[in-house]
Amino acid sequence: MSEPLFGRVALLGIGLIGSSLAHVLRRDKLTREIAVHTRRAETLETARKLGLGDHYTLDPAEAVRGADLVVVCVPHSAYAEIAAKIAPALAAGTIVTDVGSVKGAAVRDLQPALPPGVHLVPGHPVAGTEHSGPAAGFAEMFDGRWCILTPLPETDPAALDRVTRMWRSAGMRVVTMDPAHHDMVLAITSHLPHLIAYTIVGTATDLEETLKSEVIKFSAGGFRDFTRIAASDPVMWRDVFLNNRDAVLEMLQRFTEDLTALQRAIRWGEGDKLEELFRRTRAIRRSIIEANQA
Amino acid sequence: MSEPLFGRVALLGIGLIGSSLAHVLRRDKLTREIAVHTRRAETLETARKLGLGDHYTLDPAEAVRGADLVVVCVPHSAYAEIAAKIAPALAAGTIVTDVGSVKGAAVRDLQPALPPGVHLVPGHPVAGTEHSGPAAGFAEMFDGRWCILTPLPETDPAALDRVTRMWRSAGMRVVTMDPAHHDMVLAITSHLPHLIAYTIVGTATDLEETLKSEVIKFSAGGFRDFTRIAASDPVMWRDVFLNNRDAVLEMLQRFTEDLTALQRAIRWGEGDKLEELFRRTRAIRRSIIEANQA
Repeated sequence: MSEPLFGRVALLGIGLIGSSLAHVLRRDKLTREIAVHTRRAETLETARKLGLGDHYTLDPAEAVRGADLVVVCVPHSAYAEIAAKIAPALAAGTIVTDVGSVKGAAVRDLQPALPPGVHLVPGHPVAGTEHSGPAAGFAEMFDGRWCILTPLPETDPAALDRVTRMWRSAGMRVVTMDPAHHDMVLAITSHLPHLIAYTIVGTATDLEETLKSEVIKFSAGGFRDFTRIAASDPVMWRDVFLNNRDAVLEMLQRFTEDLTALQRAIRWGEGDKLEELFRRTRAIRRSIIEANQA
Repeated sequence: MSEPLFGRVALLGIGLIGSSLAHVLRRDKLTREIAVHTRRAETLETARKLGLGDHYTLDPAEAVRGADLVVVCVPHSAYAEIAAKIAPALAAGTIVTDVGSVKGAAVRDLQPALPPGVHLVPGHPVAGTEHSGPAAGFAEMFDGRWCILTPLPETDPAALDRVTRMWRSAGMRVVTMDPAHHDMVLAITSHLPHLIAYTIVGTATDLEETLKSEVIKFSAGGFRDFTRIAASDPVMWRDVFLNNRDAVLEMLQRFTEDLTALQRAIRWGEGDKLEELFRRTRAIRRSIIEANQA
């Protein structure tokens, strides 16, 4: 039997991503032990019942003591505080990574607190479902999906390599990217679609009662997909928008301009403009299908 | 063997819905014969090769001659012209129905042309995929979905009953509704989601080349769902927006107001407003799941 990749992995936070990673670490025997930390006692108890770790603690410093990999799996708003709490307990050589959706914010909130000799490898496994919490995780969630790592110029290549091997083991295709570039790409492919889904489902909620009950009843086609997206974890998504503000506002501005142009085309009956766009977007769908088959 | 529901059904147009219905008519032996009309010779040839009908013609009047049910399955922009063409060939007692997404427009464009004694039963089987054309159809597409019929006060109850039985046989849950009310409900559950999906995919297409290729590569989560929606038939959707203009503009206005409020919350870092909405939309998702289980 080959040596496991890690001796001790500390999972700080055990929601959908953290618990899915715990399943992968077990399945693939990537670590000798898993320490689980959560902020709330109730969540910790759930994780214990699910057998997601070997050690359970409400103290993040205790979780990371002796760990060679620390995975930050909490919402972005908790990053700075948790970094300050674990910093004194981190030994030189420890790798700290995260799974957050905004890489600029991850670097901003984690890096300053980390002691010298601790290796930060910001990461974003682009995978998930609309469910959340420790019971929602499953090992296969990462399978075939992208994991984007955003190492800094000073990131230790050996640390980057070990994090890469972990996500590859989970079945992910791992790429590296500049944090700011990551945040721009995700703003349009993930954050803006979520914002819009939340908005339209909210708009429907505010309808007159007679309309609203029928909207729920006949929620077919497009709207049903939107409600699925809009069922994602509220706190996580709040933090995404607050922490990727500039990129989201930039993409939102472009989207709004385009939507206003379409609104005008509908108002004035300019069918050719509508049809032209609809043909163009159909072609994009084909590119995406081809890119994923390639 | 019981008598089939119809002697001759004329399918005017044989795209995704028309071809799926043809499969149902065959499977359930609902008619003795099917006449297929298309505007383009090429599409008619495809339908013939697929064996979707018993008679094939480029002349809509020929298709409807002797039919006891005529199903209009063309985009809304072709309704008025096809109604004028078939009118002289329609015998009293014939039922005319359609499958279009906008019921106000269906009544407006079909009713005036129909001779006395011909029964109009406007209908909307709320089912589909992102694929289009005669080869895309399959009988199971309607299974478990809603079919909304919007009879007029003067619609013959017997005609309504026969159309209802056809869609029930296809596996649909059939309800009746006022045409204007249908158009408002569908504006928010279907038309607006499609418009938004088209827009955001268009916005992504217009990105700088470096970003664009990565958007295609990393099109995960939300965006991928949106590209699927935005791959739907361009002409059909153009006609939906042109023909349900008032309801779509009304819902679009509400949506834009809500989106602007969220944009402001993001800009000013008002996390509580974001979280409150995200919790509300999650609850709506649960109502929808419950409504469909009930």
